[in-house]
Amino acid sequence: MRNGKTLVTGGAGFLGSHLVDRLLADGHDVVVLDNFSTGQRRFLEPAVTSGRCRIVEGDLLDPTSLRQALDGCGLVAHLAANADVRRGLDHPRRDLEQNAFATSALLEAMREAGVERLLFASTGAIYGEPTIFPTPEDAPLPIQTSLYGASKLAAEGLISAYCHGFGLRARIFRFVSILGPRYSHGHVFDFVRKLLISPDAIDVLGDGRQRKSYLHVTDCIEGMLRALEATPEDVPVAVYNLGHTESCTVDTSLDWICQRLGVAPERRYAGGARGWIGDSPRVELDCSRLHQLGWRPTRGIRESVESTVDSLLAHRWLLDARG
Amino acid sequence: MRNGKTLVTGGAGFLGSHLVDRLLADGHDVVVLDNFSTGQRRFLEPAVTSGRCRIVEGDLLDPTSLRQALDGCGLVAHLAANADVRRGLDHPRRDLEQNAFATSALLEAMREAGVERLLFASTGAIYGEPTIFPTPEDAPLPIQTSLYGASKLAAEGLISAYCHGFGLRARIFRFVSILGPRYSHGHVFDFVRKLLISPDAIDVLGDGRQRKSYLHVTDCIEGMLRALEATPEDVPVAVYNLGHTESCTVDTSLDWICQRLGVAPERRYAGGARGWIGDSPRVELDCSRLHQLGWRPTRGIRESVESTVDSLLAHRWLLDARG
Repeated sequence: MRNGKTLVTGGAGFLGSHLVDRLLADGHDVVVLDNFSTGQRRFLEPAVTSGRCRIVEGDLLDPTSLRQALDGCGLVAHLAANADVRRGLDHPRRDLEQNAFATSALLEAMREAGVERLLFASTGAIYGEPTIFPTPEDAPLPIQTSLYGASKLAAEGLISAYCHGFGLRARIFRFVSILGPRYSHGHVFDFVRKLLISPDAIDVLGDGRQRKSYLHVTDCIEGMLRALEATPEDVPVAVYNLGHTESCTVDTSLDWICQRLGVAPERRYAGGARGWIGDSPRVELDCSRLHQLGWRPTRGIRESVESTVDSLLAHRWLLDARG
Repeated sequence: MRNGKTLVTGGAGFLGSHLVDRLLADGHDVVVLDNFSTGQRRFLEPAVTSGRCRIVEGDLLDPTSLRQALDGCGLVAHLAANADVRRGLDHPRRDLEQNAFATSALLEAMREAGVERLLFASTGAIYGEPTIFPTPEDAPLPIQTSLYGASKLAAEGLISAYCHGFGLRARIFRFVSILGPRYSHGHVFDFVRKLLISPDAIDVLGDGRQRKSYLHVTDCIEGMLRALEATPEDVPVAVYNLGHTESCTVDTSLDWICQRLGVAPERRYAGGARGWIGDSPRVELDCSRLHQLGWRPTRGIRESVESTVDSLLAHRWLLDARG
């Protein structure tokens, strides 16, 4: 499914920069489009030294940057997004603009440039509060509970309509929370940062019994590339859950984090089944579709949490970068 | 579920103007917001004579018009949309702008104005090409095949997220094609207009065997109001299919139209299972949820088609208005 370079939108982000490194290691040429609002130049240092990674600093909503970035590309991995799942309600337009409008702009630019292949980072949040666990890709049509999920579902819909209308081919991935080196937002990040400042007590959103699943970033990228290679070319749209058969409660992941940090804080629970409005108390995705293509995660979720803690400790600048 | 006036967006349209008439007849005060891009002033003549209908000419994307229109309202019926299902691919941004962005603007304005109740006109097109017939509201999460469906699904998602985040309450309706007086776009309209000009031959999109369902506009409005009254107040989001247990092929509806017009044209089929890219070859919605609330359509689909033909013949200006 590849001719020419691969454009990675959000290529300076957590997931994006790992994908860039992997593509370069596999011998592909890469273009990064990133507005560096949350992306980090330091994540791209290994890529830059390769000499095969072009960086376009610009926004998806700026047509000139977009055209420039798409030049010579045969495949787009669209990872740029507002990933601040929790604060959607503080800025109600942001998810829509950065996730749906930006995707619409990308699709139009791809159509004009004749670029037909797309990988899209969606989210398990589109399942809202599912009734089936683990949740399959063809779960009953959910009610959206977060602007983040709603905006990602909107983007998925636009992508699918373009595939049917204009001959694009898309592979859509609905992720659980991804962990690993360069991880720079989410609850493991927040716990580590807070515990380094105040190791004696920790505020926990919700009741701590929310059950979540995690996936290591290298397993995640392996899954995306497996789907890219193994999905028949003539399938216009294929949707894959990307998660882990294991899950744990927020309390358990906090146990692992505390052990790793050597702290034993008092836990102060905000209470309620959800960490925030729109948080799903249970996230477990059925990844049978990708399993059938031969993909399996290689790391357990405890290992993923622990390696994330270790990496944050080794790169403390990241904890400050979003202070 | 009602205090104050009801704002009907798209109130000068086919469905909107019928709802306005019905609300006025029920004794409610009404505000119409319409940009008159496809709405017709003549549809509002009965409403204007009531003295209880205020008309705001303006666009949902214009904050001033929107604020003005919401003043004094306790309920919004959001019917304004780009309803040109078929030509989405000619103007790829239009569905997104007029359906998703406009809905986002409305939600923000409602939140600011403290208006909490919403009826939303969605569409059965969000089911894409379903695998279950009749298709229930909790059908397997579909792949979008049209920009129209994708943009309406995006709007549904935004509405639901606002309900969960900001305490709005929404009743969402997924319609089949609605017929009846003032009907001014869609295949019955196109067939009648073409046959009046050239009664000897008619072009049929697809193979004529697409199976569709129709609902008369008065039955549709009755269903919406039934859902409004009968859904418990504390349900944040309720979704209802609004259609008919009957269905017919495009060929059969053409038979009825031809008989009514007294013509026997040669039929020239474009071929293929779909009328256009994104057309669903089979539309039959499971309306059990609304049946359980006591609603049933009172008119058969043949009667709906025939009364639409009669009405177009009696108001030929409508056939010209969109020439």
